[in-house]
Amino acid sequence: MNQVLQEIIENNRSWTEKGTIATYIPELAKANPHALGVYLVDMQNNEYFAGDVHTVFSIQSISKIITFICALTDTDFNTISKVISVEPTADEFNSIANLEIKNTNKPLNPMINSGAIATITLVKGKTYEEKFQRIFHFFKLVTDNPNLTINEAIYQSESSTGDRNRSLAYYMKSTGIIHDEVEEILNIYFKLCSINVTCKDIARIGVVLANNGIQPYSNQRVIRKDICQIVKAVMSTCGMYSGSGSFATTVGMPAKSGVGGGILAVVPHKFGIGVVGPALDASGNSIAGIKVLTELSSRLDLSIY
Amino acid sequence: MNQVLQEIIENNRSWTEKGTIATYIPELAKANPHALGVYLVDMQNNEYFAGDVHTVFSIQSISKIITFICALTDTDFNTISKVISVEPTADEFNSIANLEIKNTNKPLNPMINSGAIATITLVKGKTYEEKFQRIFHFFKLVTDNPNLTINEAIYQSESSTGDRNRSLAYYMKSTGIIHDEVEEILNIYFKLCSINVTCKDIARIGVVLANNGIQPYSNQRVIRKDICQIVKAVMSTCGMYSGSGSFATTVGMPAKSGVGGGILAVVPHKFGIGVVGPALDASGNSIAGIKVLTELSSRLDLSIY
Amino acid sequence: MNQVLQEIIENNRSWTEKGTIATYIPELAKANPHALGVYLVDMQNNEYFAGDVHTVFSIQSISKIITFICALTDTDFNTISKVISVEPTADEFNSIANLEIKNTNKPLNPMINSGAIATITLVKGKTYEEKFQRIFHFFKLVTDNPNLTINEAIYQSESSTGDRNRSLAYYMKSTGIIHDEVEEILNIYFKLCSINVTCKDIARIGVVLANNGIQPYSNQRVIRKDICQIVKAVMSTCGMYSGSGSFATTVGMPAKSGVGGGILAVVPHKFGIGVVGPALDASGNSIAGIKVLTELSSRLDLSIY
Amino acid sequence: MNQVLQEIIENNRSWTEKGTIATYIPELAKANPHALGVYLVDMQNNEYFAGDVHTVFSIQSISKIITFICALTDTDFNTISKVISVEPTADEFNSIANLEIKNTNKPLNPMINSGAIATITLVKGKTYEEKFQRIFHFFKLVTDNPNLTINEAIYQSESSTGDRNRSLAYYMKSTGIIHDEVEEILNIYFKLCSINVTCKDIARIGVVLANNGIQPYSNQRVIRKDICQIVKAVMSTCGMYSGSGSFATTVGMPAKSGVGGGILAVVPHKFGIGVVGPALDASGNSIAGIKVLTELSSRLDLSIY
Repeated sequence: MNQVLQEIIENNRSWTEKGTIATYIPELAKANPHALGVYLVDMQNNEYFAGDVHTVFSIQSISKIITFICALTDTDFNTISKVISVEPTADEFNSIANLEIKNTNKPLNPMINSGAIATITLVKGKTYEEKFQRIFHFFKLVTDNPNLTINEAIYQSESSTGDRNRSLAYYMKSTGIIHDEVEEILNIYFKLCSINVTCKDIARIGVVLANNGIQPYSNQRVIRKDICQIVKAVMSTCGMYSGSGSFATTVGMPAKSGVGGGILAVVPHKFGIGVVGPALDASGNSIAGIKVLTELSSRLDLSIY
Repeated sequence: MNQVLQEIIENNRSWTEKGTIATYIPELAKANPHALGVYLVDMQNNEYFAGDVHTVFSIQSISKIITFICALTDTDFNTISKVISVEPTADEFNSIANLEIKNTNKPLNPMINSGAIATITLVKGKTYEEKFQRIFHFFKLVTDNPNLTINEAIYQSESSTGDRNRSLAYYMKSTGIIHDEVEEILNIYFKLCSINVTCKDIARIGVVLANNGIQPYSNQRVIRKDICQIVKAVMSTCGMYSGSGSFATTVGMPAKSGVGGGILAVVPHKFGIGVVGPALDASGNSIAGIKVLTELSSRLDLSIY
Repeated sequence: MNQVLQEIIENNRSWTEKGTIATYIPELAKANPHALGVYLVDMQNNEYFAGDVHTVFSIQSISKIITFICALTDTDFNTISKVISVEPTADEFNSIANLEIKNTNKPLNPMINSGAIATITLVKGKTYEEKFQRIFHFFKLVTDNPNLTINEAIYQSESSTGDRNRSLAYYMKSTGIIHDEVEEILNIYFKLCSINVTCKDIARIGVVLANNGIQPYSNQRVIRKDICQIVKAVMSTCGMYSGSGSFATTVGMPAKSGVGGGILAVVPHKFGIGVVGPALDASGNSIAGIKVLTELSSRLDLSIY
Repeated sequence: MNQVLQEIIENNRSWTEKGTIATYIPELAKANPHALGVYLVDMQNNEYFAGDVHTVFSIQSISKIITFICALTDTDFNTISKVISVEPTADEFNSIANLEIKNTNKPLNPMINSGAIATITLVKGKTYEEKFQRIFHFFKLVTDNPNLTINEAIYQSESSTGDRNRSLAYYMKSTGIIHDEVEEILNIYFKLCSINVTCKDIARIGVVLANNGIQPYSNQRVIRKDICQIVKAVMSTCGMYSGSGSFATTVGMPAKSGVGGGILAVVPHKFGIGVVGPALDASGNSIAGIKVLTELSSRLDLSIY
């Protein structure tokens, strides 16, 4: 298997040349555009990997999954449904027009920025700090990595350039979708986007989802089964920004990408997969990362469809 | 299994009271709103069913799948990608605004009306009649039902009230997405929507997709495997109109609905499923049909996620 | 005055180099891009002119004014208000998205294509031919030119490339805004756009509006006063496509432009003005024509504001 | 004349029953819905009035005119044009979708909220306090009322419920339309909306615009003539929210309304007019105020068209 992964990395590394690093958050521009790595964890906790698996990157939008899991755990689905939908959209991840034109002001799904910001308000916590710690603690649990840290430089950069997110949040506050302090909620959002991870960390999130909530290494249930299925469904329809539909046809795995270059993918009952490749395509997804997953899906016949 | 299906039908029949028959095509208004039936075919060609499985209904949008399969068979994917995308949308199935505002005029996917109309132009045929016969013949093959007929009254009704579809088609002609005669292409579209089927017919389409293209009763390959995966992926992200995301979280099967009340669902490697229930929810999906599939998915653990 | 006009033409003729001829209707592409002419008629029926005043051009969207006057004459304003609004829009003249998203499907105003098409259905006439003749006859009356003709080549070209207008019309038919035969209504629309005129013809329409409905040369009332005021108000807010607001600030006259290169402008109580200059700006207005009107307005202090 | 105004107030007072007080800013809900008053100032500084001319109300959006005049005075039109357009729109005054979909992120005009917020950034002032004082001072000058005050309760209410405006401002900051501190700019915006005025104050602004910038009582020029014409043009196309086009056809005067119930109208070379009537129609305009202006325009033949 490691041999297969090695070949796939080699076959697709040249794709890193065709993408570009995210620069709208200045600190992200420092990433290595040529990095490419892949990490698999299976149900027996075997690990396979190839490429730049030690590259550290900020988790960015992949954190939306963790926040969504926490909200689904802490708040009943009916209440959540009044705040966010779970419908895919072809709009950009930071679109605000859809809040005005469609869906009576509700964010269309928790994988776009508006939805993720609203999701944070549904997580348990008497204070904003408690909300953040609740999510961050769960992050460490599900990755089995108690040493996760926030990348301070990226967090500061996110916060100082986060005006589009402020616009989304204030819009939702003006329509009664959220009620909390905008800067406090965004502070949590920016911090969660700035968590440093490697491929292995996100592969470990993936394998828990693949195993419907039970960590293969501990046999401990850390997520409810019904929540795992909701999350994988939403990843499948909404996880890859405006390229979600195309990804479903070519790769066919529930997945979530981040502009830090990571992709978390899940093969139900088989694998959790983490990929890193900071050079992005026009939709904001790792360009070579998608190619790696496409070849992997094809060679091992991993599409869920 | 028939016992389970029987219980599910009984548990959910009262939901038919909460929906409404489609009336925008006058002829559809004649359907029986209380009908509810379900039909399963498995990989060994065993058949299970309960409820109103003899109810005949017009296939409507479920035909979009058949047309898409024919286009994928006759035209290479690269060429298709220049005409239609495969991205889900939260817009209505007959939306025209997205052709103007988004995606440089391309229909977002082949499951909405604009996309389905464009798909027809990609099917092989020297004449419009040949195009129609090519799709209709494939319909009979994949349902294993050589006796399929067009419901003339519905076809006339579709055609005489099809001005929104004319608008979509002329818009696409004005932007160079389609080049054919609008009335000829729509004539094929209206006819395909008007094919009379029962649950069994659509379950048989489903089982071929579940089996990646090989009919379980004949062992004959009738669809390429890669095409089956593309089609199931698109059904999963776009098949249930503006309720596709919600359906993925509650049922978790590739599916396609029609305003005639049918739902075709696929459990890969396991079942093709046909449901009928003409009373519709606000998204245009069979309201009780979704409930039947929800309970079925839950009791037999059929979600692909 | 002729001296002033001569200077203004000379000062602005170089602007014709910066514009482009409309080409989406192939026949329009044959116009002379360098032509520039201006024609004034005052309340005493004095005529002043300079430049290419003999250039014949198709009236195009300027005909929307004539159609609107006929509809206002034949149908009470209350009934008209149920079919079209009189609100300006920043959308393109052929936009269809606004029919779906805004204003409950009503065209926003009679100066954009959707509104003009709907306006035709409000003109008196038992047959489509009668409707056309009613408008065409009024055209000849108000221009005092019984020899007006349809440019057959342009009419054919409009009709064969008019799919966007077909899309608009079928959309409105699907939402009950119009009830007539689409091709028949469009046939009238295309013919009216194809009327051959010179600057003098449109200046003569302008002077009737300037004089609140009475022809200065005959003292005959040909338009009701209240209708003149409605039409000039709508020209002021909607007459110059997506450049209407800018035109109001720089020129300050009720005006209507056409992609044939004509601009009809009105200085209430003073002048009717016709301009020709087929090279267009990005909004579809005569680029040098606007400059001529800007200088004229400034030198003679003609802004109504 | 006072007799005519008296009759007009009486004829239209019952219209106040059909409207509703603005309540989205809680403090506005305290206004008297039955109030109705009108005030005219002519070029010889004669004053005519009838009805509740002593009713004090907050100026709200009418302040957008004053801000726009200051910006036009302090910044050249070319620079302004890079930040805001002057194109009318059928969108709501607080629409954000048009910033995303149209016009490359520029606010469409200075009379909608986004445009007005951006306009403030174009006013001279080394500090935010200087910017505010520059506009407020001009306010006192042009109304000839040195005693104008801010309504503190309304200002606090505006600020605490101003999240939609925060959303607009942060959106524009994210796209580089504005560069200042959002809360500082909005602070100015909220204060300017909260200025207490009477009909007389706004009639006095109107008469200066009617007289192309010269105060009739002092013969002092307080606004450049070209700026007056730009402002009146923009009022004519954009001043009455989404009812601007309709107002042009029925009243035909440059005007600007505010949700406090005021309307400032201008009859060039003749009158400045102030109306108060806090009961609003669906577009946010004084419902009886429009009726008063409609009758006044009709009886005195005041339409500019």
